[in-house]
Amino acid sequence: MTERHNRGLLGLSGLSRSEITRILDTAQMFSRILDRPVPSVPTLRGWSVVNLFFEPSTRTRISFELAEKRMGADIINFSASISSVNKGETLLDTARNILAMKVDAIVMRHRASGAPHFLAKHVNVPIVNAGDGAHEHPTQALLDMLTIRQKLGKLEGLKIAIVGDIRHSRVARSDIWGMTTMGAEVTLCGPPTLMPKFGEHLPARITYSLDEALADADVVYALRIQRERQDGGLFPSIREYVQNYGITQERLDVAKPDSLIMHPGPINRGWELSHDVADDPDRSVILDQVTNGIAVRMAVLFLAAGREPESINSGARA
Amino acid sequence: MTERHNRGLLGLSGLSRSEITRILDTAQMFSRILDRPVPSVPTLRGWSVVNLFFEPSTRTRISFELAEKRMGADIINFSASISSVNKGETLLDTARNILAMKVDAIVMRHRASGAPHFLAKHVNVPIVNAGDGAHEHPTQALLDMLTIRQKLGKLEGLKIAIVGDIRHSRVARSDIWGMTTMGAEVTLCGPPTLMPKFGEHLPARITYSLDEALADADVVYALRIQRERQDGGLFPSIREYVQNYGITQERLDVAKPDSLIMHPGPINRGWELSHDVADDPDRSVILDQVTNGIAVRMAVLFLAAGREPESINSGARA
Amino acid sequence: MTERHNRGLLGLSGLSRSEITRILDTAQMFSRILDRPVPSVPTLRGWSVVNLFFEPSTRTRISFELAEKRMGADIINFSASISSVNKGETLLDTARNILAMKVDAIVMRHRASGAPHFLAKHVNVPIVNAGDGAHEHPTQALLDMLTIRQKLGKLEGLKIAIVGDIRHSRVARSDIWGMTTMGAEVTLCGPPTLMPKFGEHLPARITYSLDEALADADVVYALRIQRERQDGGLFPSIREYVQNYGITQERLDVAKPDSLIMHPGPINRGWELSHDVADDPDRSVILDQVTNGIAVRMAVLFLAAGREPESINSGARA
Repeated sequence: MTERHNRGLLGLSGLSRSEITRILDTAQMFSRILDRPVPSVPTLRGWSVVNLFFEPSTRTRISFELAEKRMGADIINFSASISSVNKGETLLDTARNILAMKVDAIVMRHRASGAPHFLAKHVNVPIVNAGDGAHEHPTQALLDMLTIRQKLGKLEGLKIAIVGDIRHSRVARSDIWGMTTMGAEVTLCGPPTLMPKFGEHLPARITYSLDEALADADVVYALRIQRERQDGGLFPSIREYVQNYGITQERLDVAKPDSLIMHPGPINRGWELSHDVADDPDRSVILDQVTNGIAVRMAVLFLAAGREPESINSGARA
Repeated sequence: MTERHNRGLLGLSGLSRSEITRILDTAQMFSRILDRPVPSVPTLRGWSVVNLFFEPSTRTRISFELAEKRMGADIINFSASISSVNKGETLLDTARNILAMKVDAIVMRHRASGAPHFLAKHVNVPIVNAGDGAHEHPTQALLDMLTIRQKLGKLEGLKIAIVGDIRHSRVARSDIWGMTTMGAEVTLCGPPTLMPKFGEHLPARITYSLDEALADADVVYALRIQRERQDGGLFPSIREYVQNYGITQERLDVAKPDSLIMHPGPINRGWELSHDVADDPDRSVILDQVTNGIAVRMAVLFLAAGREPESINSGARA
Repeated sequence: MTERHNRGLLGLSGLSRSEITRILDTAQMFSRILDRPVPSVPTLRGWSVVNLFFEPSTRTRISFELAEKRMGADIINFSASISSVNKGETLLDTARNILAMKVDAIVMRHRASGAPHFLAKHVNVPIVNAGDGAHEHPTQALLDMLTIRQKLGKLEGLKIAIVGDIRHSRVARSDIWGMTTMGAEVTLCGPPTLMPKFGEHLPARITYSLDEALADADVVYALRIQRERQDGGLFPSIREYVQNYGITQERLDVAKPDSLIMHPGPINRGWELSHDVADDPDRSVILDQVTNGIAVRMAVLFLAAGREPESINSGARA
């Protein structure tokens, strides 16, 4: 465990408030760069990163790729479906091989919870977790927090309701760790079969009543319904789900008047959110989340490369 | 509908002669750049484009990608097979998400006729149609016209025979609109089952006789046989097709002696064209079409980015 | 057959000692560049290469791609699964089409032995063979030789044992040609069903006894077990193979004390090599092979582009 790989980002569990604040502050600087006519800075030119995706992904992969391109990094895409993983190679051998090609960092998505943590113990380049099993998805939670901070000015003291399939959601877990560390109060809401199991001891209140969850909320965060979960019998019918947990303008009456609507995408319109809620021009910040995804990933990679926020606008390393 | 998205290219139907001429003139400038030892100009550096392909494609995608790279654009490739489209997201949500990542333009191929037109009504970046259903494939028709103009000096007054499966061909439709707007006379030829349906009112003559179509032709354009059409019973046997509509040196006797042979590729050799016709050193301009594909796509993207042809050789935007 | 395409690399069979030495010397220069903080030189900026992979590949493709990126080349990836090859287009038409897009070189992998040689007769850009059938994989053998030269100072006079499925291995064939040309003595070892057929006349000694092959060896090169070969009945059971040909520390007792352990990857741990042999900190140079893969491919492409080794550090072509 060298100092070096600690610059990666495995999860938000365990990060301090000042560590999260540092990432958000850096992301905020990149957010301003993205508003320029030429939204790029060649700060990682000559630095190379491999996007190691063992699970299919479109939007997270594209978001990381755009973040990397906008900082001028060299990019190698590696997806499991075409990889030696199918040839019986171990995860560690795959990673060592890639690193032998002189790669500076690994962005990694894996079906197995803890896979990036395992790898981080054995290789000495920074690893950025782009989602591991139902465990963590830290860059998603950071972009969520950046969006809230931009819109409401802070996280401290906010009431945040996370609604849906909490049990299988790495987004929810990272959000819970990050948001509570930053001083928000998180309420989890969904049908009992989709709630975390006993013993997880998450720092959040649990309720099965949407009205209770939304009461006085500053932020309403709807998780995506994974239709494939239905096969396991964990999921009620869609109709029943929508009736009890679908978020409509009417259900939102109990939330704060200027509460934010958030969703990690892609939306099943009419299920998690009604059409008018998803497109609510005042409350919905779903597309801001997407935009902030680039800024946050630029920040995380920038810090993983050991750069100081003061040097954002300068060129490649010497 | 802002002024901005109008800079895209949805189809040739409705474009004026001067609009088409402007694109062809710009493409001709890029064609000369492609003949240089270093065939690139960094004119779109800092500009980003997403190649949004909902239908598999090799050569069109590669041609667009090379065009984009040679102008220094940032490129995001998005193909449907690995996309959220499979997760039930609407086309509009997919596009909005991509645009939230601060992308400057969309190049799009879609199975559904009119999909890019639908999108263009709802997003405010330029959209370039890389083929929609059996509707239009405007950059293909532009590269066809550029090739003819380079070889024969003009389009006005030329007799052009398009032979094969007109009914299902977006290439044919774009060629018909573009070539007739430029003053050429187009004749469509093929078996009755593969001709456009009544009511399409295309500005072209129709004949089922290849001899009649080729008589006195300046350009003979063979469309690709889509073998998969045979399943629908629309297609005669290959043997019968080749006998009646396969283009050989003998059948070409009735065309002008210096007529051009064209094909959008990939060729089924011995079917649409005999080997010696496909490789005819004097008449076949099939590989020139491919080369011009890059020049035309550079021009279309360059104009979509709002650049003026006078500035082709200058650097990135300020 | 112009002088130009002769700059490609089809195989090591037929190359002279001075030709191989020139590539290795150039690769050694790139190897030093890869040790720099910024491991890239923009020597191929404005030069474009297509990676034409008709057979799935992860590590070879990534290695070529990184080599190309680190010299600043424009890259087009073309893989068969999404290509027009499925549409009945001939290999030659596919290649001609790509070249019509003004590509400067082709890196090619193909299932059929001799496919790159066929293409090289018909197109006039350099072709680099990235593996053709069971025939040759020249860049792999070059990286093997570069690694040996770095570790042992030379190839001349070394005893090299290649162990495993020689019959189906293009790696083995290229290694045999290259290493013997450089003055090494090669011994091939494996079960009789996996040995080359009579009549191949390879310049190597053949033995079915691992002890005989390893006796006094300077280099022990284990080939990967292709599990799929078992279906053909050519392969003994894995258990039997491991017992007879699996390389363990114990079996290595008869080799030279400082002998090198090599493997083309990916390793089936516990099969071709025991865990402790694969990870032997003194003997195993398997990850050095991977690193050298980049250097060798940079050298091969650099020379294919007609650059002189003296100009490695200079910029793009005029």
